[in-house]
Amino acid sequence: MVSNPDDVTAIVNTGDDAIMHGLHVSPDLDTIIYTLSGEINPETGWGRHSETWQAMTTLRQLEREPGDLAWFNLGDKDIGTHLYRTARLRQGATLSEVAAEIAKGYGVEITILPMSDNKVATMMKLAAGLAGGASEEISFQEYFVKLRHDVEIASVRFDGAETALAAPGVAEAIAEAEVLVLAPSNPVVSLGPPLAIDGIRSAVVERVANGKPTTAISPLIGGQALKGPADRLLVEMGQEASSAGVARWYEGLIDTLVIDEADAGDKALVEACDIACVVTQTVMDTPEIAGSLAQTILDLANR
Amino acid sequence: MVSNPDDVTAIVNTGDDAIMHGLHVSPDLDTIIYTLSGEINPETGWGRHSETWQAMTTLRQLEREPGDLAWFNLGDKDIGTHLYRTARLRQGATLSEVAAEIAKGYGVEITILPMSDNKVATMMKLAAGLAGGASEEISFQEYFVKLRHDVEIASVRFDGAETALAAPGVAEAIAEAEVLVLAPSNPVVSLGPPLAIDGIRSAVVERVANGKPTTAISPLIGGQALKGPADRLLVEMGQEASSAGVARWYEGLIDTLVIDEADAGDKALVEACDIACVVTQTVMDTPEIAGSLAQTILDLANR
Repeated sequence: MVSNPDDVTAIVNTGDDAIMHGLHVSPDLDTIIYTLSGEINPETGWGRHSETWQAMTTLRQLEREPGDLAWFNLGDKDIGTHLYRTARLRQGATLSEVAAEIAKGYGVEITILPMSDNKVATMMKLAAGLAGGASEEISFQEYFVKLRHDVEIASVRFDGAETALAAPGVAEAIAEAEVLVLAPSNPVVSLGPPLAIDGIRSAVVERVANGKPTTAISPLIGGQALKGPADRLLVEMGQEASSAGVARWYEGLIDTLVIDEADAGDKALVEACDIACVVTQTVMDTPEIAGSLAQTILDLANR
Repeated sequence: MVSNPDDVTAIVNTGDDAIMHGLHVSPDLDTIIYTLSGEINPETGWGRHSETWQAMTTLRQLEREPGDLAWFNLGDKDIGTHLYRTARLRQGATLSEVAAEIAKGYGVEITILPMSDNKVATMMKLAAGLAGGASEEISFQEYFVKLRHDVEIASVRFDGAETALAAPGVAEAIAEAEVLVLAPSNPVVSLGPPLAIDGIRSAVVERVANGKPTTAISPLIGGQALKGPADRLLVEMGQEASSAGVARWYEGLIDTLVIDEADAGDKALVEACDIACVVTQTVMDTPEIAGSLAQTILDLANR
């Protein structure tokens, strides 16, 4: 097992960053930092525990139509993080610098890197217009939070990804890691943004070509997402919601796919994509299961 | 006495508005709205009562040097107001529109108008450099809150005032009011910003020329400010910290100056400026005294 936090680097999606009422919100960075620092709200999986909602209550009292503005929950303690981030970015700090400062402030010891210091915005093109009119393109948070991902998506694009640079240290971390793991998150909208940045994608492709262990953990359990729209989005993007669909989605970017025991029957289909397949428990209900999953991944480095 | 809130319009200084960590803060608008709605914290005279400070606590934990960022107190409930204002301004609403919406949201019935929808920023030029170097120009909030107005000021300027327009309704309210009152606030930095806007100053000058009742209430009690730097700033601007100094400061802009009983001896000096002088209780310790002061002012319309 990894025992030294210095040995771990998390490269984090920032395609779902948003400016909420003037505050720069980085949901994925914060969720990781709150989780690793024990600050996370275990019931929601986002935001801080023992949170209060005074600011939101005021915003709800003031907004003209219910949900017009107050559709993205900002807890009071969480807002402090956003005030800090926004203030530092306004002072000219990079997102990398700010992420490192916030991680340190919360006592997180592993290295946290945003995928890029440039703005990359995940944009969702709806299959049908919301108001019955022409189809619209909306931000990821509008899709995920405001509409609770309960709409059909025609296409996804990562605005700014064409010119975005990988943040300092990202390409190096990818090149040098003993094991690279694409986390069991949404392949389309969570892994999609970093992999849409040329400096990141090419670093991943290169390490696979060089035979360095590069693994994804499938987010599907029995072909379904544990939560969120991973299964639905894979289908909407023309892929199967299955281990084989995930394997094809990551073709050229991984050498191994870890799938859940519930999908053990998919092993041959994954291997048909020229991707090794490891079957194990992937639902991290307990720290022991999470530790065992991590060990399985690390063992791949020693094959 | 005025019994109908529709009869009252407050034209409010926005020269001390600031962007705090991305949030548009309008301290004078909020203080008036919170006061009139009973939301004010009576102990501080700003912010909301029964306030919580979770966001500030987080910001203080994250900031690298104490006071580096967290020098302007933002209560959690208060932040809700700023989130609303910032969101609406980002949507393209004017500050007037937003001020009216917030006032309505808090149940305020009088008309609240910001002095301008354009940005006007009160800038304070220090007499000596803070770090021992060249003299600097700082924002009003840095002067008032961060430095607790405990520095010598060489000059004050209202950035943007030259081109700013009076907000919709402001010039009309000034022209049509039975009585115009310059409130007992800081003549230099609270009344200074609106009076630096040509459309406001000329409307005031015109009503005085037309003989319409136009009164200021001196903020000085026995030649001293009740709180804040009104006395000190008058002196730094080359004026006396006295009723006569206030009268001269407002020359051409008022026909009457109301001074406190503590300054009764200044009456002749005020009148020597060709300004009528009314002596009464001006320290509004109780609603009764405030009501009596208001009645004194209104009676001027019936002279």
